[in-house]
Amino acid sequence: MAVTEIERDAMRRALSLATRGPRGLNPQVGAVILSPAGEILAEGWHRGAGTPHAEVDALSKLTPDATRGAIAVVTLEPCNHTGRTGPCAQALIDAGVARVVYALDDPGDQSSGGSDRLRAAGVDVVAGEQSEQAHELIADWLTVQQRGRPHVTVKWAQSLDGRAAASDGTSQWITGPDARADVHRRRAEADAIVVGTGTVLADDPALTARDGEALRPQQPVPVVIGARPIPADAAVHRHPHSPLFYDTHDLAEVLTDLGERGVQRIFVEGGPTLASAFIAAGFADTVLAYIAPVLLGGDRLALTDIGVATIGDARRLQVDEWVPLGADLLAIAHPVSPPEGS
Amino acid sequence: MAVTEIERDAMRRALSLATRGPRGLNPQVGAVILSPAGEILAEGWHRGAGTPHAEVDALSKLTPDATRGAIAVVTLEPCNHTGRTGPCAQALIDAGVARVVYALDDPGDQSSGGSDRLRAAGVDVVAGEQSEQAHELIADWLTVQQRGRPHVTVKWAQSLDGRAAASDGTSQWITGPDARADVHRRRAEADAIVVGTGTVLADDPALTARDGEALRPQQPVPVVIGARPIPADAAVHRHPHSPLFYDTHDLAEVLTDLGERGVQRIFVEGGPTLASAFIAAGFADTVLAYIAPVLLGGDRLALTDIGVATIGDARRLQVDEWVPLGADLLAIAHPVSPPEGS
Ligand SMILES: NC(=O)c1ccc[n+]([C@@H]2O[C@H](COP(=O)([O-])OP(=O)(O)OC[C@H]3O[C@@H](n4cnc5c(N)ncnc54)[C@H](OP(=O)(O)O)[C@@H]3O)[C@@H](O)[C@H]2O)c1
Ligand SMILES: NC(=O)c1ccc[n+]([C@@H]2O[C@H](COP(=O)([O-])OP(=O)(O)OC[C@H]3O[C@@H](n4cnc5c(N)ncnc54)[C@H](OP(=O)(O)O)[C@@H]3O)[C@@H](O)[C@H]2O)c1
Repeated sequence: MAVTEIERDAMRRALSLATRGPRGLNPQVGAVILSPAGEILAEGWHRGAGTPHAEVDALSKLTPDATRGAIAVVTLEPCNHTGRTGPCAQALIDAGVARVVYALDDPGDQSSGGSDRLRAAGVDVVAGEQSEQAHELIADWLTVQQRGRPHVTVKWAQSLDGRAAASDGTSQWITGPDARADVHRRRAEADAIVVGTGTVLADDPALTARDGEALRPQQPVPVVIGARPIPADAAVHRHPHSPLFYDTHDLAEVLTDLGERGVQRIFVEGGPTLASAFIAAGFADTVLAYIAPVLLGGDRLALTDIGVATIGDARRLQVDEWVPLGADLLAIAHPVSPPEGS
Repeated sequence: MAVTEIERDAMRRALSLATRGPRGLNPQVGAVILSPAGEILAEGWHRGAGTPHAEVDALSKLTPDATRGAIAVVTLEPCNHTGRTGPCAQALIDAGVARVVYALDDPGDQSSGGSDRLRAAGVDVVAGEQSEQAHELIADWLTVQQRGRPHVTVKWAQSLDGRAAASDGTSQWITGPDARADVHRRRAEADAIVVGTGTVLADDPALTARDGEALRPQQPVPVVIGARPIPADAAVHRHPHSPLFYDTHDLAEVLTDLGERGVQRIFVEGGPTLASAFIAAGFADTVLAYIAPVLLGGDRLALTDIGVATIGDARRLQVDEWVPLGADLLAIAHPVSPPEGS
């Protein structure tokens, strides 16, 4: 049977419920249980690794009587995997659910097959409803599954001629307020904000995402990479999240570890040495260059060496958008076939 | 009497005639002589220093009978100055011209006052007709009169991160064909194209303005600044114009000399050392930065040192336009209150 208007509404609701759960090791998933007549009986969402999946969360709010013949609307294919929780497909069968409408196929090797199991038990299954929205919701989580590492955005601010600061190191207000506000908005969309020890020692940044003076509700975890010790009273210690310190220059190692901690998106904010190291290693999935209409000259470069010896090795970018921000210009770009880990 | 439609047309014609004369030490001026009934009797334009002014050129094509009671339409106020030619105001009076319509007041200290002399002789004088167009026509010449030097455009091509070349010096095709074509178009609008000895020795450029493979009809005079000798077989020697060589680093001296030769616009094409010297000296009136979406890193900088020690001294630019050219972006900018000669 085709998806009904009521089920479509329930999927929109499930997608919205999904976002109540945390971004992390597990995907954000939402579920709505409808009566055969189409009334909402219960709602559920996934609250992170080790907790019940969304559809089980919803079922748990109902008596067996209530679930018999019900319709389950879920943003991800019910799993077929016995992990810390039982297979959701079986839980739905046991509850007597008559019909399952879901958005996205389960991409996992071990957990997929839920829809087959449901169908074999005589449950009516419809796949693909609002799959695009569901994909967008967990795109970052999917990326981490595929690549084994978080999505990396490397951001820097520069003068038109590619400098990060004047010769004496001063750099206050290279870019204007619109560009700075844009950075804070984007920080809040990342799970972690990454800097080198050089930036912490030079600037003592708070590494928070702010809206004016106020902290934004979403805060990325601060991450500092490098061997040098950071002062005990560094501002980063007062961040709402405990900072992560990596005493290494091995960025692949850092990315793997962050991925294993459930970090899906990182925002590399420099400085020049670290930004260049990420680009040189081919780990920059997105590049954000905030370009101020100012000339500085001198040797304080926004990027240092990125391992390009000759013009044929140049890191070509595809600029997705040039965004005017006040007097500044933001280039949003991605490398053309980035040489991953090279 | 107000300007008639016929006189307005005659002014448009005079502005077009003016462009037949050369850009140079003297302004481009055009003139049309109308009969009292409004028929075109003669046309004239100024062919450069030492030749008759436009209105005298036009009068010379007519008998005294024809000019009596005529109307002279001229793009610049008739001069009052006895130089290599007599004062044009007196020539018009002598010819019995009854009415003069002109566009722009004569900006010269010695040559102005022509309209007063005409009026004193009973000639009907109307000033300001299409003065904007007339101003635009000779804006560069006016700049040279006011500043005592040509208008300077400093152009460079760079990677997004401000490099002119890869570490080994290779730089072919940093920017794409649209950007390169744009450069050639703009070269043709300049009176001189300026490079340092470094660029000639490294690249042996032709310094011509081309349209594809073909030479454009307008060619800037090639200028090379620096002490090092240039090979006798350098491509610049095959330029349609004889190159000018300046064995100096004193850019003010070069600009003054070029101005005295009638050069109104120069196009500084580098390299990095010379471009930076022009910017450092405050001589860059227009900046053209062609930005390619590519990262290079390394030490081949598009600009070197421009004399900025601290962020407060940064050379702020007003970007008049960000122009997409294929995958590249051209920033057309001018310095905010440039520190002339500082
Ligand atoms: N324009 C901008 O957008 C921007 C942004 C941030 C900072 N800044 C400026 O940048 C300056 C600091 O520059 P910076 O380059 O020293 O800062 P940085 O890149 O933050 O720190 C460099 C340090 O990162 C560590 N590191 C970690 N992984 C590395 C790797 N794979 N390769 C090399 N080093 C690695 C090293 O620390 P250890 O030596 O301790 O091992 C290295 O010395 C400050 O003046 C700050 O104001 C500018
Ligand atoms: N990306 C671009 O748009 C672009 C454009 C042109 C060239 N390039 C590249 O730039 C490289 C050449 O660089 P470059 O910097 O050596 O070239 P350059 O700027 O053309 O030449 C530098 C020379 O200019 C002379 N000069 C004249 N006035 C000066 C002043 N006021 N201050 C300092 N020097 C003055 C000096 O010559 P003397 O020592 O002889 O006195 C100096 O060595 C080449 O590899 C070329 O491919 C790039």
